[in-house]
Amino acid sequence: MKVIKSVPAMQQYSLAAKKHGKIIGVVPTMGYLHAGHTSLIDLVRAKTEIVIVTIFVNPTQFGANEDLSNYPRDFERDLQLCEQHGADVVFAPEPDDMYCADRSVWVIEEKLSRGLCGRSRPEHFRGVTTVVAKLFNITLPDVAIFGQKDAQQALVLQRMVRDLNFPVEVIVAPIVREADGLAMSSRNRYLSENERKSALCISRSLFNAELQIKKNGLAALGEILSSVWDNIREAGGAIDYVEGLDADTLEPVTEHTVAILIAVAAGFGRARLLDNILVKIKD
Amino acid sequence: MKVIKSVPAMQQYSLAAKKHGKIIGVVPTMGYLHAGHTSLIDLVRAKTEIVIVTIFVNPTQFGANEDLSNYPRDFERDLQLCEQHGADVVFAPEPDDMYCADRSVWVIEEKLSRGLCGRSRPEHFRGVTTVVAKLFNITLPDVAIFGQKDAQQALVLQRMVRDLNFPVEVIVAPIVREADGLAMSSRNRYLSENERKSALCISRSLFNAELQIKKNGLAALGEILSSVWDNIREAGGAIDYVEGLDADTLEPVTEHTVAILIAVAAGFGRARLLDNILVKIKD
Repeated sequence: MKVIKSVPAMQQYSLAAKKHGKIIGVVPTMGYLHAGHTSLIDLVRAKTEIVIVTIFVNPTQFGANEDLSNYPRDFERDLQLCEQHGADVVFAPEPDDMYCADRSVWVIEEKLSRGLCGRSRPEHFRGVTTVVAKLFNITLPDVAIFGQKDAQQALVLQRMVRDLNFPVEVIVAPIVREADGLAMSSRNRYLSENERKSALCISRSLFNAELQIKKNGLAALGEILSSVWDNIREAGGAIDYVEGLDADTLEPVTEHTVAILIAVAAGFGRARLLDNILVKIKD
Repeated sequence: MKVIKSVPAMQQYSLAAKKHGKIIGVVPTMGYLHAGHTSLIDLVRAKTEIVIVTIFVNPTQFGANEDLSNYPRDFERDLQLCEQHGADVVFAPEPDDMYCADRSVWVIEEKLSRGLCGRSRPEHFRGVTTVVAKLFNITLPDVAIFGQKDAQQALVLQRMVRDLNFPVEVIVAPIVREADGLAMSSRNRYLSENERKSALCISRSLFNAELQIKKNGLAALGEILSSVWDNIREAGGAIDYVEGLDADTLEPVTEHTVAILIAVAAGFGRARLLDNILVKIKD
């Protein structure tokens, strides 16, 4: 497995691979890898000839008072996991090599990124779209994969690929959960033992919501969402949002809605946790 | 020469060419080609194995009251010129195939695009950066060429390539002029015979400014610009701007300035004309 830190070296590697007709897959990550990430590597490994894992804690997607400086890192362990899962290249650039001091170009998304996380993190998604556009242009993938845990991010990036015509197939992979249901996240390490237990209310109330919808449809959606909200509040969560939206448009559910996304963001201790479920309501 | 109208067909063509290691050059145009455009084709032809000319009157770079619907078109003549100059492919998509109705992603540039044309055309450059990013992702060029006549556009696009890491070499080619000095532009066809004569004051006053700077340096820059302004006003031009800026940053000239760009935008009749000169003041 190659470890590449230089931006031009990575781009040269991918340009050469493309010239030889190789199918490239990329798994963009911020490192501190867990079983969610390695499931992405495995899925891409099965579909491509060269798997590139990018490890880059992207400063432009963090707000001023967010956890950029404390974001968990363990590069050596990440490399081991990448190697074990058959990655060919780990691309781990330095922030100063990714961003010029006088940078002035951004990729922005103006619809899907407005609600949910975009409301409390107004600069977040332009950081995400910009860095992923850069990573695409540096690693030149045929296939890129993102996790459904960050459901809004996955939709925004699919929209970016469509609207800017990137020649990239985007795969969105299912959420990987701990045995007890907690969605895997690098930020789970911020949780104390008690916070960890309380945070279980998120996945439990989402699973319960899924059951209710499957049984009774969307007639009682308001009550279902209230009950998710109450459960998380009672467990001590600082709720950012609990929403049920059309899973394709992130707009309110309509008669055309094929699947509903119930999405939660809530703080437990220092950790802002995301989770969601996707429930198909029409064939 | 191939004429491709479908976006996926164009992208497939370029993906296949890249797999065979071909060097691709792209000449993005809005059609109604003149000797300025064909000089770009010739320059790219000499450096690449496959030359793609794109012809697309991009709606997103026109403001509400601008000349989108009247923009001159002559597709058959354009095809002849492309063929004569050795283009391999003309890519001419329809607006509805380039832009989804619910499009929501833009590439924006926030510094170089603010002044000059960006002041009177506030949405123009985001239309340009977005469509060129799309054309790059569809045609996958190794080399792209733009004309110095649109000096600000060339700088904005070079910045886009740098900041988003497009694997594309950008060439900026010199202005091509009519025998009497008028900078070639598809919009020159809007000019009546008299307007055409009056508009000559633009290039004449720029050449004169160049002479003055070469002789006396920048000490009298203010006076030189005033005299360009006065000449154009006296000839009946509706001046949008006459500015002398650092040619790399588009900021005011400083002690670090290596070259100065004197740029003019002025209306004659229905035509908004651009012209500029680049004067090196330091080695």
